[in-house]
Amino acid sequence: MKKVTVLGAGYMGSAITFPLAENCFDVNLWGTWLDDNIINSCLKGNHPKLKKPLNKNVNLYYSKDLKKSIIDRNIIFIGISSEGFLPVFKKLLESIKDSKEDYIFFTLTKGFVNHNGKVKQLSSTAKELFEEKFPRKKFKWASVGGPVKAVELSDHIPSLSIYGINSSEIKKLAKLFSTDYYRVLTSADVCGVEICSALKNIYAMAPGICDGMYKSTREGMYHNFNSILFNQGIIEMSKIVYRIVGNNNTVFDLAGIGDLYVTAQSGRNRRLGELIGKKVKPKEAYQMMYDSGEIGEGYNTLNLAIKWLDQLDKNLLKELPLLNSLNKIIFKNYSPVLELKNLIKDYF
Amino acid sequence: MKKVTVLGAGYMGSAITFPLAENCFDVNLWGTWLDDNIINSCLKGNHPKLKKPLNKNVNLYYSKDLKKSIIDRNIIFIGISSEGFLPVFKKLLESIKDSKEDYIFFTLTKGFVNHNGKVKQLSSTAKELFEEKFPRKKFKWASVGGPVKAVELSDHIPSLSIYGINSSEIKKLAKLFSTDYYRVLTSADVCGVEICSALKNIYAMAPGICDGMYKSTREGMYHNFNSILFNQGIIEMSKIVYRIVGNNNTVFDLAGIGDLYVTAQSGRNRRLGELIGKKVKPKEAYQMMYDSGEIGEGYNTLNLAIKWLDQLDKNLLKELPLLNSLNKIIFKNYSPVLELKNLIKDYF
Repeated sequence: MKKVTVLGAGYMGSAITFPLAENCFDVNLWGTWLDDNIINSCLKGNHPKLKKPLNKNVNLYYSKDLKKSIIDRNIIFIGISSEGFLPVFKKLLESIKDSKEDYIFFTLTKGFVNHNGKVKQLSSTAKELFEEKFPRKKFKWASVGGPVKAVELSDHIPSLSIYGINSSEIKKLAKLFSTDYYRVLTSADVCGVEICSALKNIYAMAPGICDGMYKSTREGMYHNFNSILFNQGIIEMSKIVYRIVGNNNTVFDLAGIGDLYVTAQSGRNRRLGELIGKKVKPKEAYQMMYDSGEIGEGYNTLNLAIKWLDQLDKNLLKELPLLNSLNKIIFKNYSPVLELKNLIKDYF
Repeated sequence: MKKVTVLGAGYMGSAITFPLAENCFDVNLWGTWLDDNIINSCLKGNHPKLKKPLNKNVNLYYSKDLKKSIIDRNIIFIGISSEGFLPVFKKLLESIKDSKEDYIFFTLTKGFVNHNGKVKQLSSTAKELFEEKFPRKKFKWASVGGPVKAVELSDHIPSLSIYGINSSEIKKLAKLFSTDYYRVLTSADVCGVEICSALKNIYAMAPGICDGMYKSTREGMYHNFNSILFNQGIIEMSKIVYRIVGNNNTVFDLAGIGDLYVTAQSGRNRRLGELIGKKVKPKEAYQMMYDSGEIGEGYNTLNLAIKWLDQLDKNLLKELPLLNSLNKIIFKNYSPVLELKNLIKDYF
């Protein structure tokens, strides 16, 4: 029986335990210091976010027991928020030993991190930290993407996930996670999958804003305008990925189109956008959601992505009108209605 | 003042009169023999489908007055259903003379036609017929695509349209249709825009079917699964357009992604899909809608597209699992639930 530890007992970390446990993996689920209440609830009955009990074979660990949760395990899923990623990954590295076997990381966490004064992709920072600690070990890493909402995965709704993978060994392993309702496809474009997964949280706020405006004021925007915003999100994601990876095939498939679609239809980033469209101040909207235990990751990811692109290529940043508009709306107090309407007049 | 005649007083033909009239075109709107009641209503007050009066400068013509409606006009919008296209276009050619000026056609009609025992693209059939009648005239034609729902256009909701255009003269003219809420972009890929516009009516039925199943039975399918279907629609459209045009850039922009998005969110083809998902027999669902004056064009377009692809390239047809599944569901009585679920297990 293969053993796996999932770090993070929020939506996605907990949901992935369903196909894993049903595929007879021995699953440990560790909750961060923000998740102790979740672990409590799960021990008594339902997972409080997924509204159902986890598989009874899943072993639950409180935040204090990170070390215990990874004893004898080298397959590690990381399912924590991008804000929490660095502290947890550092703690993880302190806790693991130089075992004979390689560690294999499957990361459900999306985004960028602030590390040593620079904004970086999460995977490259993880690689850096890992290689500092284990200079002779190979860094084995997969970025998990594609249109998979956690609650629906836990409901056994048919879902396809795309794993960006950098070794054939991991590819073989990842195929073992498939069930009749959760199918794992693989791609060699680790970086493209990671960037798509992060950016889609940003761009999904745009149709949310548009719908929010419509719902509160019927400010003359709906499906036609929403479709422009969705399409523009894909166009801009493809420009960014092309700049980094040299092609944009990954964007025009499940990791890009598919994942932006599901995120634009429902979920936390869309909801954050809706609140902003309804004229809640963006910072307040983020905080309101945060206080009820829901993180609109697009908010921080947008802030970091702008800095990351500014470091990377100022000219590219100029070619991303929707990203710039979202930045103005969310961090510079511009009116969503005027800003988005001007977009179609002036930029596209 | 430039003069234009719009043929077809249904949704799209009528909606396009708003930006045209507001741009000071002298607009004639001619209704087909199915539209006489619409013209009646418009003369009394509201357009019955758009639920508002047309611009008072639009001149209205009953079906018997086709000839009158095009006197002295060489810019012609065709906004009739694909079923009605051939009879109207033939009647039009009978009615027009070999004037000094060239005729310029902007077609809002999407799809394929059955002509001389073969299924063909609408534009190539139009070209054939036009050149039979006017062998020395240039065939000037634009295919209008992009995510523009008619009701929203008539509501002045911000919209972007993409016109596939084969001459620089038409390009210049098309730019004159733009307003502050309706912006016309152009593309040289006339054929790609036309095919996208037709295919999106087919593929939009798939998320509709999925939602219909969910709404009636909670058959375990929703956003995750819907996103797979949307994504697969784009993938298959890109394969088809690539086969015909040699590239698929048009699909990955407003004419493909944008237009499939708006069509999958709302509209007649989506609604037809929903009915089928709720276990109404496809033929009955089509007829129910038809009887209430709404045509789910995807139904006939699917039938014709399968024949068109079969003529064109049998191997390509085999690589389009979603199209084949839709064909089985809609014309061969297969169960939507089983057929779509099997898709993600076996094909993608």
